[in-house]
Amino acid sequence: MELLLGIDGGGTGCRAALADSAGRIIGRGKSGAANIMTDIEGARINILAATRQALQEAGLGPEAETSVSAVLGLAGANVNNNGARLEKLLPFARAHVKSDATIALHGAIGDGDGTVVILGTGSVFITRQKGQIRTIGGWGFKVSDLGGGARLGRDLLEEVLLAHDGVHPASPLTEKTMALFENDPDRIVTFARDAKPNDFGAYAPLVFEYADKGDPLGSLLIERSVKTIEEALDAIMPPEQDRLCLIGGLGSLYAPRLSPKYRARIHPPLGDALSGAVQLAAKLFAHEEAAHG
Amino acid sequence: MELLLGIDGGGTGCRAALADSAGRIIGRGKSGAANIMTDIEGARINILAATRQALQEAGLGPEAETSVSAVLGLAGANVNNNGARLEKLLPFARAHVKSDATIALHGAIGDGDGTVVILGTGSVFITRQKGQIRTIGGWGFKVSDLGGGARLGRDLLEEVLLAHDGVHPASPLTEKTMALFENDPDRIVTFARDAKPNDFGAYAPLVFEYADKGDPLGSLLIERSVKTIEEALDAIMPPEQDRLCLIGGLGSLYAPRLSPKYRARIHPPLGDALSGAVQLAAKLFAHEEAAHG
Repeated sequence: MELLLGIDGGGTGCRAALADSAGRIIGRGKSGAANIMTDIEGARINILAATRQALQEAGLGPEAETSVSAVLGLAGANVNNNGARLEKLLPFARAHVKSDATIALHGAIGDGDGTVVILGTGSVFITRQKGQIRTIGGWGFKVSDLGGGARLGRDLLEEVLLAHDGVHPASPLTEKTMALFENDPDRIVTFARDAKPNDFGAYAPLVFEYADKGDPLGSLLIERSVKTIEEALDAIMPPEQDRLCLIGGLGSLYAPRLSPKYRARIHPPLGDALSGAVQLAAKLFAHEEAAHG
Repeated sequence: MELLLGIDGGGTGCRAALADSAGRIIGRGKSGAANIMTDIEGARINILAATRQALQEAGLGPEAETSVSAVLGLAGANVNNNGARLEKLLPFARAHVKSDATIALHGAIGDGDGTVVILGTGSVFITRQKGQIRTIGGWGFKVSDLGGGARLGRDLLEEVLLAHDGVHPASPLTEKTMALFENDPDRIVTFARDAKPNDFGAYAPLVFEYADKGDPLGSLLIERSVKTIEEALDAIMPPEQDRLCLIGGLGSLYAPRLSPKYRARIHPPLGDALSGAVQLAAKLFAHEEAAHG
C-alpha cells in the first residue's frame, strides 16, 4: 500500500496525518515542538513520535515509517538549508520539507491562484500566480511580522508606558492593561524583558476588543497594523487575483477591517495546513511516479 | 578625613571617583559591569573593585572603604527596590543609590532647573524644576526608549527586509545595509534573533550618516525618532525652562535636528555623570551633617 504522510510542525507542536494513496486520512498523531531553526534533533524526534501515533491509529507498526512518502511543512524550512538537512535525518521512503506557509497555501486555496495571509503570532504572505509561489514577511518578531499578534501586543505595552509617562493620552485600553499589571510599570518592564513573541501576542485580542468598543488607542493600533497588511498585499497580490484567505488566530479578526478592495476578495480557506500537506504529498509523489516510475 | 565617593555604573562597566571633603578628585577606578537588575552580587563586586582602585590611587588601603560617603548612579535603581537592596550590601559609611539619570542630570546641569536627555542605546528624559525631579522613558529597548540607538538600528533592519520583500522602496541605505549582511536576508534574521540592544544600536550611526547624505529612508527614520524625542520633551520640559542638554553617544547627532524651539535651548553639559555623582555626594552628605551632625 502507498502511504502518504502530512506533517504540520512549528514552535508549539507537531501534527501528523496519514493517508492512503487516494488521499483518505487513515490515522492522526500529535506531539511537541518541531522547531528546526533552534532544535533540529528535537524536531526529528517529535515528527517521528507524531508519525508513529498516526501509523498506530491506522493499525500499522512503527516499521511502516520506512515506506511513507511525506510532505512536511515547517517554519524555518528555507532558512540556513534547515529543510534539506532534516530530509537527510528522516527514515521515510521519500520526504519533502516545505515551509509552513507553503502547506498553509495549499490547504487554504488548493491548486489554483490565490493569496494567503497567515496572521497569528507573526505574519506571512504567500501567493500562487500561474504556478509561481512567492512569500514575503515572516522574518520573525524582532525585525518583521508587522501584522502579527506579537507586534500588536508589544505596541500596546509601549503605548501604555507612554501614557503612564504623560507622553501620549491614556484611554480605557491603556487603563485596562495597566490594571492587568497591577498599575505598576515595573511589572510591564519585567514582563517584556523575558517575554517570548507569543507572550506579547496574548495581549493582541484585547486590542481588537477595545477597538470594537471605539477605544481611540485600540483603533489606532489596529489601523496601523491593517496598513502594514495592505502594503504587503499591494506588493504581493496581483490585481487580477480574486481569492484571498486570511488564516491564523487573528485572520477572522482582521478580515472585516480590510479596505473594500481586499475585503471583496476574501474567501474562507478550503482546508487547514495539515490537509494541505497531505494533498501536496498526494500531488507531488503521484507526479513523481508518473514522471519517474 | 571626610571621603566622598561617586560611582557611575551600568551594563558595560563601572567607574569610581574619590574626592576629599572639598570635592577635589583624589583617585579614580574602573571595573566591569554593575547591572543591579540582572546581577546585584556581580554589581557589588565590581563597585568595590573600582572603589579600591580609587582608594589605592589616593594612597589609601581597602579598609578606608568603611569611611567613605558614597553616591552611586546605577541603571535600574528604581526598579524592584534594587537600589535599597544594594545599599544594605555595601560596606561604605553612608551610601545613596540613585538612578543613572539622576547623576547624569546633576553632572550636566548642576543644581539648577533644566532638562537632560540621555540618547545612547536607550533614551531617558529627566528634568529638574524648582527642586522637583521627574524622569520619563528609559523603560528599556523592548517596550520603550524610542529615541535610542537600539531602536534606530532595529528599525533600519526592519526596513531593509521590507525593501527586500518589495513592500517599501529600496534606497542607498537599505542597499548598504544589505551588503553588510552579504545580501542575505537570513543573516539579518539570524543576527536579530540573538542581538542585544547595543548590537542593534551599532547600526544607528549609519542611519545618521545616510540621512546627512539625503537618503530618503535615513531621513525618514531620523525624522520619526526626532518626533518621539520632541513628544517626550513636550511632556516633560516646562516651556519657561531654558536649559536643555542632549548627552549620550547620539546626543550630538540629534542636537542639530531638533526643531528651533528646542534647538535654541540646548547647552553643552557642565560635566559627566561621574562628576555629577561626586557633586551629589558632596551636596547630600554636607546637607546631612548640617541637619543631623
